[in-house]
Amino acid sequence: MAGPLDGTKVVDITTNISGPSLTMILADLGAEVIKIERSGTGDDSRRMGPMWNGEGAFFLQINRNKRSIVVDLKKEDGKRIVKRFVKEADVFVENFRFGKAEQLGLGYEDLKELNPQLIYASINAYGNKGPMKEKPGYDAVVQADTGIMGMNGTENSEISRVPVSILDQGSAIWGALAVVSAILSRNRIETGQKVETSLYETGVFWSSYNLMSHLVTGEEPKKMGSNHAAFTPYGVFQTATEPIMIGVSNDQLFKKLCVALEKEMWSEDDRFRHNQQRITNRNELNYEIEKVLKSQEATYWADKLDLNGVPSAIIRKISDVATNEQTEQLSMLQDVEHSTIDNLKLYRLPISFSGNSTSLRKGPPLLGEDTKDILKEFGYDEVSIKHFIKSGVVNS
Amino acid sequence: MAGPLDGTKVVDITTNISGPSLTMILADLGAEVIKIERSGTGDDSRRMGPMWNGEGAFFLQINRNKRSIVVDLKKEDGKRIVKRFVKEADVFVENFRFGKAEQLGLGYEDLKELNPQLIYASINAYGNKGPMKEKPGYDAVVQADTGIMGMNGTENSEISRVPVSILDQGSAIWGALAVVSAILSRNRIETGQKVETSLYETGVFWSSYNLMSHLVTGEEPKKMGSNHAAFTPYGVFQTATEPIMIGVSNDQLFKKLCVALEKEMWSEDDRFRHNQQRITNRNELNYEIEKVLKSQEATYWADKLDLNGVPSAIIRKISDVATNEQTEQLSMLQDVEHSTIDNLKLYRLPISFSGNSTSLRKGPPLLGEDTKDILKEFGYDEVSIKHFIKSGVVNS
Repeated sequence: MAGPLDGTKVVDITTNISGPSLTMILADLGAEVIKIERSGTGDDSRRMGPMWNGEGAFFLQINRNKRSIVVDLKKEDGKRIVKRFVKEADVFVENFRFGKAEQLGLGYEDLKELNPQLIYASINAYGNKGPMKEKPGYDAVVQADTGIMGMNGTENSEISRVPVSILDQGSAIWGALAVVSAILSRNRIETGQKVETSLYETGVFWSSYNLMSHLVTGEEPKKMGSNHAAFTPYGVFQTATEPIMIGVSNDQLFKKLCVALEKEMWSEDDRFRHNQQRITNRNELNYEIEKVLKSQEATYWADKLDLNGVPSAIIRKISDVATNEQTEQLSMLQDVEHSTIDNLKLYRLPISFSGNSTSLRKGPPLLGEDTKDILKEFGYDEVSIKHFIKSGVVNS
Repeated sequence: MAGPLDGTKVVDITTNISGPSLTMILADLGAEVIKIERSGTGDDSRRMGPMWNGEGAFFLQINRNKRSIVVDLKKEDGKRIVKRFVKEADVFVENFRFGKAEQLGLGYEDLKELNPQLIYASINAYGNKGPMKEKPGYDAVVQADTGIMGMNGTENSEISRVPVSILDQGSAIWGALAVVSAILSRNRIETGQKVETSLYETGVFWSSYNLMSHLVTGEEPKKMGSNHAAFTPYGVFQTATEPIMIGVSNDQLFKKLCVALEKEMWSEDDRFRHNQQRITNRNELNYEIEKVLKSQEATYWADKLDLNGVPSAIIRKISDVATNEQTEQLSMLQDVEHSTIDNLKLYRLPISFSGNSTSLRKGPPLLGEDTKDILKEFGYDEVSIKHFIKSGVVNS
């Protein structure tokens, strides 16, 4: 089966996490991605530990299905090469800081003259306007600026970032959605366009429940730990062994919980009967529930809650997730071929198609692994290629 | 300007957060979404607090640009109505627990017979196979099952969920990407298909850096608080006033940090010169940095770090984000018309298009607000509509 983006050509000058994650998604959907890297070191994330045979483990994850060419963008010949690619491309993706692409002569206005059909995608830290537009940012820095870190944990806990990169990878998914939407639109409006996203806008989107709550109540959201402002009981409880997360969002589920805990009277109790009463008496109820849960092991309760249809989960370690039968049966981890790493395995995208494939066709490239092949495909002859290599315009 | 999905018809039988968030994205991109709700109470999230004039604030956010019809799916006539919609639709979206859509006669096999061009999207908690496929789940429950909660915070902190719904809303973005990809694909393969995502697969994707690290090292990821396993200094530091997040991912940025802190000698110091040395001596370096930072106010450091090109941010509250000039200038919060709420404002998607609009065309519907209009559009006459209302098949 083909991918939805089969035949789509993507020119990718991004580095680090957000941009390469965006083009990984396009690549997994079938696009041919040409990854343009700088000489010597290439993409920074190649050296982001831990390392697997000399390549950063996460670099491997987010650069599969791409080919690599080394081009010096500071040289005029280097820019000319990129522009030749762009003429035949469907999509161009950059994640420079605001204004840098224009400085390099690779802004949208420059490139759309060469190719009016081009979809030009920009992903940066703070967006394309406003006083912070030139501010540099990483995932956790923008988590701080969008209120996410400030809500994480409990009132007395040390301030912690969300431990997964929901802004780098989150903005990558949004960017990929914008690109695919623009390709679809091109079939109708018959022209390319520029699409944009940023870590800041993505962070504001993640916080939208809290921002809407603030807009309505005027109050500052509390740091809730594992609890939820809108429901109770919803949180982590101690058992005789590991802690367990229980999620109850309505009165019917609460009744089921009461049956599982053999405390049916609670669902008739005026302190607990309705969600609003439970929110008012949250501490009391949480205390009562934990008292019951501490009498047995976590697995006992997980089974019993499951049997009664109450959503719950024991707090899992990453090693548990890696070996979980569910992860296995969903084929989340897949074998991929690589030039120097035997037995390379990478995690697939969280979507599946009955009529298309999203595939791990090839492992991530070594730095400049495909430089010559790509130049040949775009019509450069052996003499030019040798000249480019000699003068440091490209590297292989 | 038109949206990329203008003219696309979506039949939406989802409730709560993940499904409605998915169809909100499609609606913002221009699709016509028919939201099918149950009689009496409608979508559960209508009652998820805080409330704004009787409607849940987050319900409002994730149900704009849709129309609502109340249909009783337990009645044969109700199912027939939905199937009539499906015959003319491009997309059908459900977020029932595994197997429930099939029980209702609304599974993919049922609906594709009526409309082979249909894109059928399923979003559930644990995916479509494996021992956990029937397990119920909410955002934080699946955060526990995918290792995210277990990594959040510090070794000694209370276990906390990630305070924004990265699985409900995250799987919604993935689902929307899959739907748009399938629409694009339909132009080529000339047939519809089923697309699927789940909170569990989305959680495994968020954890992929940690899972890849575990695969390579065999070690359990540590709970890092605001720090990052791969870089130092990267974390939150105390100042004379508010705490500040500083992100340094490479040696060049570290040099800039040393200049900003007037500690240039650190970048020549064998304990700190290279990232790997800084990781080894993380505690020592963090201690030294904080000693300097405590001498001045947070705003002093934020400005100075900015001037030196070092990514940093003061830990912001939600009220800060709401009033931040950056949020304002990016027009994140927009006015939307609503039948009963004056001055309704909602947060836009974090993407923008130069050649398309993503728009807040109308506020979210009251329960069953569009029942009669929708039935008329699909060819039902006044007599049938009255009959359906009388027999409780629909409600308005």
